[in-house]
Amino acid sequence: MEYYSVLLPLAIILVLSKVLVKFCERLNLPSVVGMLLAGIIIGFVKFIPGQDIITATSLEGLGFIAKIGVIFIMFNAGLGTDIKSIKSIGVPAILITAAGVIVPMGLGFVVACLFNGGFGVPKEVLLSNLFYGVILTATSVSVTVATLREMGKLHGKVGDTIVAAAILDDIIGVIVLSVVIGFSGTGANAEAPSMVILKTVLFFIAAIIVGYICNKLFRAIEHKFPHHRLLPILSVALCFFFAYASEAWFGVADITGAFVAGIVLSGNPEVNYIERKSDIMGYMIFTPVFFANIGITTEFGGISTELIFFGVCFIVAGLIGKVIGCGTAAIACKYGVRDSLKVGIGMMARAEVALVCAQKGAEFGMINTSIMPFIVILIVISSFTTPIVLRKLYRKELEKEKAAQAVPVEAK
Amino acid sequence: MEYYSVLLPLAIILVLSKVLVKFCERLNLPSVVGMLLAGIIIGFVKFIPGQDIITATSLEGLGFIAKIGVIFIMFNAGLGTDIKSIKSIGVPAILITAAGVIVPMGLGFVVACLFNGGFGVPKEVLLSNLFYGVILTATSVSVTVATLREMGKLHGKVGDTIVAAAILDDIIGVIVLSVVIGFSGTGANAEAPSMVILKTVLFFIAAIIVGYICNKLFRAIEHKFPHHRLLPILSVALCFFFAYASEAWFGVADITGAFVAGIVLSGNPEVNYIERKSDIMGYMIFTPVFFANIGITTEFGGISTELIFFGVCFIVAGLIGKVIGCGTAAIACKYGVRDSLKVGIGMMARAEVALVCAQKGAEFGMINTSIMPFIVILIVISSFTTPIVLRKLYRKELEKEKAAQAVPVEAK
Repeated sequence: MEYYSVLLPLAIILVLSKVLVKFCERLNLPSVVGMLLAGIIIGFVKFIPGQDIITATSLEGLGFIAKIGVIFIMFNAGLGTDIKSIKSIGVPAILITAAGVIVPMGLGFVVACLFNGGFGVPKEVLLSNLFYGVILTATSVSVTVATLREMGKLHGKVGDTIVAAAILDDIIGVIVLSVVIGFSGTGANAEAPSMVILKTVLFFIAAIIVGYICNKLFRAIEHKFPHHRLLPILSVALCFFFAYASEAWFGVADITGAFVAGIVLSGNPEVNYIERKSDIMGYMIFTPVFFANIGITTEFGGISTELIFFGVCFIVAGLIGKVIGCGTAAIACKYGVRDSLKVGIGMMARAEVALVCAQKGAEFGMINTSIMPFIVILIVISSFTTPIVLRKLYRKELEKEKAAQAVPVEAK
Repeated sequence: MEYYSVLLPLAIILVLSKVLVKFCERLNLPSVVGMLLAGIIIGFVKFIPGQDIITATSLEGLGFIAKIGVIFIMFNAGLGTDIKSIKSIGVPAILITAAGVIVPMGLGFVVACLFNGGFGVPKEVLLSNLFYGVILTATSVSVTVATLREMGKLHGKVGDTIVAAAILDDIIGVIVLSVVIGFSGTGANAEAPSMVILKTVLFFIAAIIVGYICNKLFRAIEHKFPHHRLLPILSVALCFFFAYASEAWFGVADITGAFVAGIVLSGNPEVNYIERKSDIMGYMIFTPVFFANIGITTEFGGISTELIFFGVCFIVAGLIGKVIGCGTAAIACKYGVRDSLKVGIGMMARAEVALVCAQKGAEFGMINTSIMPFIVILIVISSFTTPIVLRKLYRKELEKEKAAQAVPVEAK
C-alpha cells in the first residue's frame, strides 16, 4: 500500500474538521456535526476527475484509522461514565432509562418494519429492523448538560435524573447492540440465540473479574510511579485488549469491549489523568477521522423518495420516542408534568454513540448506509431543539428565582 | 481487513514495550532499545503453531501504524531542533558536523563496498553501499545530553558543540538520505541526478516559504485562541501535509517532510505546547509500534557468517567514524585534545534516527533487512560506552572542581 497517500486526506480532514467544529460551536451545535460536515465536503472531492486525494488506497487507510478511532470514542465514553451517579438516583433513573430505551427502540423498529418489508419476515430482515431501533436508544447528554449548566440547573432532581438515565441508557444500548449483532451472525458465525446470550453474559462476568484485578494493579502502579505516563499507556492497552477479546472470544462487538474497559477504569482515582491523555489521542487524529470518514463514505446516490419518507419517520420516532418514553416514566415516578417533560426533552439529544451504532450496523450489513444522512439530521435537529425547548421549560422557574434574588435573602 | 486482529498485538506491544523501557532506563539504555526488544520478543510468537496474534492482517495494520509513527518521530525530532544553538556556536560546529558526517559515511560506504560487490559496480549497488554510509551519519545525543547534564557539563564549550553538531548532522543526514533515495529511483521513478537535486532544492525553498507563512498564521491563531487545542492539531496537519507533499510532489522522503515541518515550527513561541501534545500521540501508541514493528519484522534467518563479519565491521565503522571525524575536526578548530575526544565520544551515540533511516532504506529495497539487528547492537553499544567513556574523560576535571569547592569561594 502506498501508505503516504493517506497523509494528504488526513491533513485536510484535521484542518477542515477543526474549522467547521469552531463554526458549529458558535451555533451551539455539537462538534460531531462539524466533523461529519468536513467529511461530507471532502467526500465530494471524489467526483473531481483526475484527483488523487480520495483513492481506494487512502480510503483504506482512513478506514483503518477510523476503526481505531471508534475504539477511542467508546473508551472515552466509558471513562466518562460515573457509576456512582446512577446509584444515587436509584429506581426512578432505572425506570426512566428502561422506558427511554424501549419506546424509541420500539418506534424505530415499527417504522423500519413499515418501510422494510413488514413484520412477518425472515430473521435477517427482522434483526435489521430491530437494529434501526437500537440506533435510537443511546442518548448523548452533552448538549443537555451544557444547557442545564448554563442555567445553573445541572444539579437538581431533573439534572441528576437526566445524567444518570443517559449513562444507564448508553450501557443498556451497548448491551442490546451486542446481543442484536450476536443474533445476526451469518454463515459460519451463526449461533443459537441461547449461545449468544450466554457468551454476552460470560463476557460481562469476565470483564468484571479482569477489570477488578486490573484496577487493583493500576492502583499499585500509580502508587509506585505517581502521575507517570505508564498508567495511560496501560489503560489504552487494556482498552485494545478488551475490544479484541470481546469480538474474538465472545462474539461481542469490539466497541462494547472498549466501552466496558472505560467503565472498568472509570472508578480508578486517576481516571481524569487517563481520560485526558486518551482524549488527546482522540481529538488530535482519531475522532475527526472517524466522523469525517462517515461523511466521506456516505452515498447520497442511494436516497430514493421512499427512503426520504423512511428517514423522516425514523427521525420523528427518535425524537418523540425519548420524550414519550422518558416523560411517561418520569410521571409514573411522581415527577411533576413539567419536570417530566424536561427529562423527556433532555434525553432527546443524540450524538456520537448513535453514529457509532449505525456505523457498526452498516459494517455488519444490517442497515442501509443511506440512512446515515438522516441520523446526522437527527443529531442536528435534536441538538438545536433540546436547548431551546429546555430553556423555555425553565423560563418561569428562572424568572421566579430572579425575582426572589431581587429581595435580599440570607446566603445559604 | 478483519481490522480488530491488530488490537491484540497492539495491546501486547504497548504493555511489553513499557515494561522493557522501564527496565532499560534502569540500565541507562535509551528507551528505543526496550521497544525494539519488545518487538523482537513478540516476533518470536510467529513461530508458535496455530497462533493468531502475528498474522498477515495484523502485520499489515501494525505496518500502517508504524508508518504514521515514523512521521511523528521525525516531526518531534524536528520540533526539538533548536536552530539558534547552531548559530551561537558557528564555524566550529559546522566543521565538526561536516567531518562527523563525511567520515562515518565514508567508512560505512567502504565497509559496504568490501562486502557487497566492490567499488566498480552498477549504480544500484553503489547507491546501496552509499546508503549503508548514510545510516551512520545521524547522531542521537539524548544519552550524551543526559550524561553531561548529570555531571553539570551540559552548558560549556564541549556540551554546546555536541548539541549544535548533533542537530546539524541530523539535518545534513536527512538531506543526504533524501538525495540518495532520489538517485535510487527505479523504473518509472528513475530521474536524472540533476533533476533529483533540483527537486530537493525546490522542496527546501517551498518548505521555507510555506513554513514562513504558516508560522505567521499560527502566531495569529495562538493570539486569538491562546493555548487552544487548535494549534497542535493544525501542526500535526502541517506535518502530514509536508510529509505528503515532499514524497508525492518532490520525490523527497516523507520523513524528510515531517522533519522539516518540525523545524519550521521549532521557532514558534508555542513550540513546547505543540511538542507536548504531539509527543503524547507518539508515546501513547505510534512510537512503540514503530520500533516494535522493526523488531517483529526483523528476519534473523538471513544472517550468514559473512553478514556477521559485515555487521561487526559496520558497527566499528559507525563507532570510530564519529570519534575520528568529529575529534579530528575539533582539534583542527583548536579544541584541546581531551576536549576533542569528548566531542568525538559524545557524538558517537546513535538511536532512533539511525533506525528510521535504515527502515526507510529497507522499504526502498536499498539495504538488506538482516542488517537491522546490527544497527540495534550499534545503538546498544554506543549507548553503553558513551556515558562510561565521557565520565572517565571528565573525571579529572570534576575532581579538581570538587577540590576547589572544598576551599570556600564566594558565590557567583
